[in-house]
Amino acid sequence: MPTFKLTIEYDGTGYHGWQVQPGMSTIQGVLEHAMERIIGTHVHVKGAGRTDAGVHATGQVASLRADFRYPPDILQRALTSLLPPDIVVTRVEGAPDGFDAQHWAQWKRYRYTLLTRPYPSALERRSTLFVPRPLQIDAMVEGATVLIGQHDFTSFQAAQNSAKHPVRQVFLAQFRQEGEHLLFEIAADGFLRHMIRIIMGTLLKVGDGKLTPEDVKVILKAKDRKRASKTLSAHALCLLEVGYRPFGTIAEIG
Amino acid sequence: MPTFKLTIEYDGTGYHGWQVQPGMSTIQGVLEHAMERIIGTHVHVKGAGRTDAGVHATGQVASLRADFRYPPDILQRALTSLLPPDIVVTRVEGAPDGFDAQHWAQWKRYRYTLLTRPYPSALERRSTLFVPRPLQIDAMVEGATVLIGQHDFTSFQAAQNSAKHPVRQVFLAQFRQEGEHLLFEIAADGFLRHMIRIIMGTLLKVGDGKLTPEDVKVILKAKDRKRASKTLSAHALCLLEVGYRPFGTIAEIG
Repeated sequence: MPTFKLTIEYDGTGYHGWQVQPGMSTIQGVLEHAMERIIGTHVHVKGAGRTDAGVHATGQVASLRADFRYPPDILQRALTSLLPPDIVVTRVEGAPDGFDAQHWAQWKRYRYTLLTRPYPSALERRSTLFVPRPLQIDAMVEGATVLIGQHDFTSFQAAQNSAKHPVRQVFLAQFRQEGEHLLFEIAADGFLRHMIRIIMGTLLKVGDGKLTPEDVKVILKAKDRKRASKTLSAHALCLLEVGYRPFGTIAEIG
Repeated sequence: MPTFKLTIEYDGTGYHGWQVQPGMSTIQGVLEHAMERIIGTHVHVKGAGRTDAGVHATGQVASLRADFRYPPDILQRALTSLLPPDIVVTRVEGAPDGFDAQHWAQWKRYRYTLLTRPYPSALERRSTLFVPRPLQIDAMVEGATVLIGQHDFTSFQAAQNSAKHPVRQVFLAQFRQEGEHLLFEIAADGFLRHMIRIIMGTLLKVGDGKLTPEDVKVILKAKDRKRASKTLSAHALCLLEVGYRPFGTIAEIG
């Protein structure tokens, strides 16, 4: 049965996150329902990242196996016609046998967007966190740098459902000011539950001068969730990209 | 009684346009309701532009007179606390006696946003028009240039409720490509009903090669709505800015 790789953009506002939950509207659920309408039987759609309720994506990736014998772009068009306007499959590609969007992922890149101006935004209220005060951006940049590299991120994961292996490698953790927006981009080989939102809560305290970049180092080393700051809102977080080895290479290895 | 100038951002998605209509939710209606809660009596809020249903704004301007004796930014905070999240008063200023946001406006600037890529956007579906085909942008730019200057825009106004005096002066009509977006900005001393949306419909036909820039000139000169193209969707249109003479100057003149 052919395997496919889907790239997906969604507005997470109306959904209870990626993963199927009984009685809840989820991205995965809507995609599986659309696939079932196309194929006629249940199709399991596996996402690279299980985004939380309210989190958006422009580059989520999912894998599926289905008895679909037409070219991948026919599948894309069929999905487009069946999906609601807040979920768009932007690309469908054929993938090697056994391709698993979650386990094959090498890294994921997310963006968290702060709106730093004196008044909120009507048009961006679903995708930015409103911070109506000046921030010490240099200190935030320095605090973010502490996170780069391989670390035990226990301090920055949700206290419930904590991972057995909380070591992750962060490749990128940078701020960029674009007009009224302060964008934080972070890429890692994986993320613990709520990791980015707890990191952002902590770095925002650095920006407010309530923590120093040195404190971020201390918090990281403490391996204690209580030391880090509050989990910031999900709605300003967006999954931008999931990285894989080129399929040709993997297929040869596998 | 003091006069105030309000600058307003709104997401037009959930409203039947700016202007109060019985039984309909409108921006003006929501603002007047909030002002009534603050002042205790009905306050007439007059907008610079009567945006259609679905049109957004980042820089709509409105005027009002109210028995409010505190500094303008107190009024802004009071409004912010009462307004829904899709309407934000970004600025309140004291204005000279007799200030009328509509009649005192010197010019207005709007933006129409096309999303030109092969697949639609989940996150931008409320603010962009999806055009999944390559466009001849040079021809669109040339067609837009035809509109600059003082002209009778009868061909580009809604057939119903046509203006008695359809001459308007267009100061700016330009396209800008920003990644996957093709932005059209137009500024004029005033706009006829549906004018920008009909202009965009016509320029899109130029982009599709179905009309030439020369045809735009012919259509303009014909002063006949039937010659221009279809009115494009309102949801990709945004009122960016309304221009006034500096108040000091006007107050001295008046």
